[in-house]
Amino acid sequence: MLRAGMIRQIAAGIYNWLPFGLSALSQVETIIRQEMSNINASELLVPCIQPVSLWKDSGRFGASNDLNNEMLRMKDRAGQEMIFTPTAEEAIVDVIASGTQSYKSFPLSIYQISWKFRDEIRPRYGVMRSREFLMKDAYSFHMNRECALRTYEDVLRAYLRIYHRLGLVAVPVAASTGAIGGDYSHEFHILADTGESTIYYETSLEEKLKNNEITLSSLQDIYAVEEEKYNPELCKALEIVSRKGIEVGHIFYLGNKYSKAMNMKIQDRDGSLKHPEMGCYGIGVSRLVGALIEANHDEKGIIWPDAVAPFKFIILNLKINDAKCDELSKQLCLILDKRGVDYLYDDLEYGPGVKFSRADLLGIPTQLIIGLKNAREDKIEVKDRKSGKVTILDINQFGNYLNSL
Amino acid sequence: MLRAGMIRQIAAGIYNWLPFGLSALSQVETIIRQEMSNINASELLVPCIQPVSLWKDSGRFGASNDLNNEMLRMKDRAGQEMIFTPTAEEAIVDVIASGTQSYKSFPLSIYQISWKFRDEIRPRYGVMRSREFLMKDAYSFHMNRECALRTYEDVLRAYLRIYHRLGLVAVPVAASTGAIGGDYSHEFHILADTGESTIYYETSLEEKLKNNEITLSSLQDIYAVEEEKYNPELCKALEIVSRKGIEVGHIFYLGNKYSKAMNMKIQDRDGSLKHPEMGCYGIGVSRLVGALIEANHDEKGIIWPDAVAPFKFIILNLKINDAKCDELSKQLCLILDKRGVDYLYDDLEYGPGVKFSRADLLGIPTQLIIGLKNAREDKIEVKDRKSGKVTILDINQFGNYLNSL
Repeated sequence: MLRAGMIRQIAAGIYNWLPFGLSALSQVETIIRQEMSNINASELLVPCIQPVSLWKDSGRFGASNDLNNEMLRMKDRAGQEMIFTPTAEEAIVDVIASGTQSYKSFPLSIYQISWKFRDEIRPRYGVMRSREFLMKDAYSFHMNRECALRTYEDVLRAYLRIYHRLGLVAVPVAASTGAIGGDYSHEFHILADTGESTIYYETSLEEKLKNNEITLSSLQDIYAVEEEKYNPELCKALEIVSRKGIEVGHIFYLGNKYSKAMNMKIQDRDGSLKHPEMGCYGIGVSRLVGALIEANHDEKGIIWPDAVAPFKFIILNLKINDAKCDELSKQLCLILDKRGVDYLYDDLEYGPGVKFSRADLLGIPTQLIIGLKNAREDKIEVKDRKSGKVTILDINQFGNYLNSL
Repeated sequence: MLRAGMIRQIAAGIYNWLPFGLSALSQVETIIRQEMSNINASELLVPCIQPVSLWKDSGRFGASNDLNNEMLRMKDRAGQEMIFTPTAEEAIVDVIASGTQSYKSFPLSIYQISWKFRDEIRPRYGVMRSREFLMKDAYSFHMNRECALRTYEDVLRAYLRIYHRLGLVAVPVAASTGAIGGDYSHEFHILADTGESTIYYETSLEEKLKNNEITLSSLQDIYAVEEEKYNPELCKALEIVSRKGIEVGHIFYLGNKYSKAMNMKIQDRDGSLKHPEMGCYGIGVSRLVGALIEANHDEKGIIWPDAVAPFKFIILNLKINDAKCDELSKQLCLILDKRGVDYLYDDLEYGPGVKFSRADLLGIPTQLIIGLKNAREDKIEVKDRKSGKVTILDINQFGNYLNSL
C-alpha cells in the first residue's frame, strides 16, 4: 500500500490516505452502506470527541482492560475530560434514549462509518492494526431477545453479502465478547497465511459458506471458534481444521448490558418499563482494504477485485509525444469519459518497463497498452492484470469490447 | 435543527448528526465533491490526530493567536504530543513534499472533507459555531504565482457554483488572512440577519453575482470587504451597503509561507530548487447546513431547497389502519421505490394536526397527503411546502406527475 501510493504514515499507526487509497476505501464504504441500508439500518454519526462522563456511566472508563488503556484522553480548554471515540455504545445509547420512549419505535437499527482511535502500544502491519482507523459500527435496539436475535442474524447475513461482493470469503466463528461484553458474538475472518489470528472450524463450514447456507442456527450446529474459545476437548470427534485469519468483522448480542448500565428505559406494549435488548456490529473498513490486498496480490503487486478497484482501466501510453500513440490514447480517454468509466491515464515519460511494473503494482484490473508498433495499425493491447492474458483489439472494436463486459 | 431531529448536542459545541441531519450533510458533501472534481482536485484524507512536531515546524504551535489556543491537545500512551487537526496545511505539505520532487507534478490540487476540532471558548449557534465541525479543505501547489492565482480563481468560481447549486447566494469579499496567513484571501458570506459578520460592498457586486460575472480581476475592481478590512476612508465616493452575513467559505493565496517554513523544495524546469507557491481553500460543510436553513425557513420550520432535501417527498397517511388510506399510501411507496426516489412515509398514529406541523417543520419539499375523503375517490393531495400550493391528483396521474418534474 505504501509502494502503490495508497497511504503514508504520519505517526506510529496513523496514516494519510492518498487519492488512490481513499478511492478503494470509499468503494468499500459504498458497498457497506448499501447492504446496511438493505437491512433497514439508518446512518447517523456520533462525534469523534466525547465526554468521559458517558464512559463512566457505563463503567468502561477506568476498567482494567485493553479498551480502557487504549482510550486517547484529553482535557478541553474548560478542563472537561474527553476521549476520542474507540467505539460508540455509550454515545449511541445516550442519543437513542433521548429520542425514543415507546416500543413503537422498535426494533431500531442504526449505523455509522467513522474514524475511531485506539491507542495500541504496538501498532503494526500498516492499516491492519493502526491506531486511527475507519470503522462501520451498527447498533440495534429491541424489546425482547427474539427480536434482537433476528436482527443479529440479518446483520450476520448482510456481512457475508458484503464480503462476497468484495470478492472475499469470510469465515464466521464464535468469539469471545471481551471489553464490549454481551451474551455471545461472532467474528468474521478472511483466510490468509499472514493473519494474526487462528481459527478452528469443522470442514463442513466451508461447504455451507459456498452454498450460502449460513444462518444463526446452522452456525450453532457447527464447531467454529476463534482461538480464545478453542477447546480441543469439545471437538475431539469432529473433523476440524485450523487456519490463519484476518478478523474483518465482529458482531455482538449485548443483551441489556448497556441499556441497564445507562438506565435507558422504554415503555413496552403492556405499559411496563424495560431496558431494551441490544446488539452491536462492527466492520473494520480501513483494515478491510488491507485484508483485500492480502487476499488479492501476487509478487508484482495488487490485483484489485472489480468491485473495489479504484479504477477499472489504466491506459499505458508507451511512447509519449508520438503523434499516433498520443492520438489513440486520447481516443480511449474520450470513449471511457463518455461512458463515465473510471480510468487512469499514465502519460508520464518513463520507459515501458517502469510503466508495466508500476501498472502491475497498482493492480488496476485491465491495462490498455498503446505501443508504437500496434498503434501504427490502429491496434491496442488489452491485458488482464489477474490472468496476464493479452488480447489485441482494433481501436474500432473497443466500444464493442466495453459493451461485452 | 434540534426540533427537527437533525442533530443532538453531546457536549458544548459537539453534536450527534441524526439520520435526517446526516442526509442533508451528505448531500452538501456530494455537491462539493462534484465541483472540486470538476476543477481537477483529487480527494485524499489526512488523519484527525497529528503529531505536534509538524505544527512546530510551521511555527503555528505556540503562536499567540486563536488557532493555537483552540488546538485540542493530548499526549498518546508513548508520551508523544498530538493535536486534533483544526486545519491541515502542515500535514498536507508534509505528505505532498514526500511524494513530489519535480515541477512535472504541478500544478497539483487536492482536497479532503473531514471533521476538524477547534476548541472555542464559547461555542454557540448550534452547528454554526461548533467545536467539532465538518470542513472541506483544499490545497494547491504551483511553481509560480500566476499559476497559483489561476487555481485561486478556479476555486473561487467553483465555490460560487457550489453555493448556487445549493440555492444560496454567497457574496465574496476581500478578507484578512489571520492565523492561516498568506498574501490575500476572500471570504464567502450568505446574507442573513442572524449572521455574526458584517460585510461591506458596492451595490454593483450583487449585479455581477446575478449575471455570473465574478472573476478574480472583476472582484479586484469592486470594493467588497469583511469588517476587519473595512475602511470608510477608502470607499467614500462609492455606493456601499453593509449587510449581516454568515461566513461559509474562505480561500487564501498563501505564497510560499508553508512550503518555506517546512522546507519543501521542488525542482523547476531550469533545474533550480524552489519553495512552491500554495493556495488553501475552505468550506465549512456542517456550518453550511445551518446556513442553508437560516436562508430557507419560515415560522413553521425548514424549507429545504431541492438540491439538499434529505427526502424529496413525505407521505402523510392521515388515517392509519383505514384500509383505503393504507392502500393508497402503499401504492405511492411502491411507485417511488420503483423510481428510486427518496421519501419519508409518516405512518405514526398521530392526528392530522401533529402530522402537518411535523411535516412543515421537517421541510421536505413536497407533501403527499392521503386523507379519508380524497382516498375514497382514489385521490391524493400534493402540497408544495414552500408556496403552500395544493393540487388534487388522481392516484393514476401520480406517475405522470413525477414525469413532469
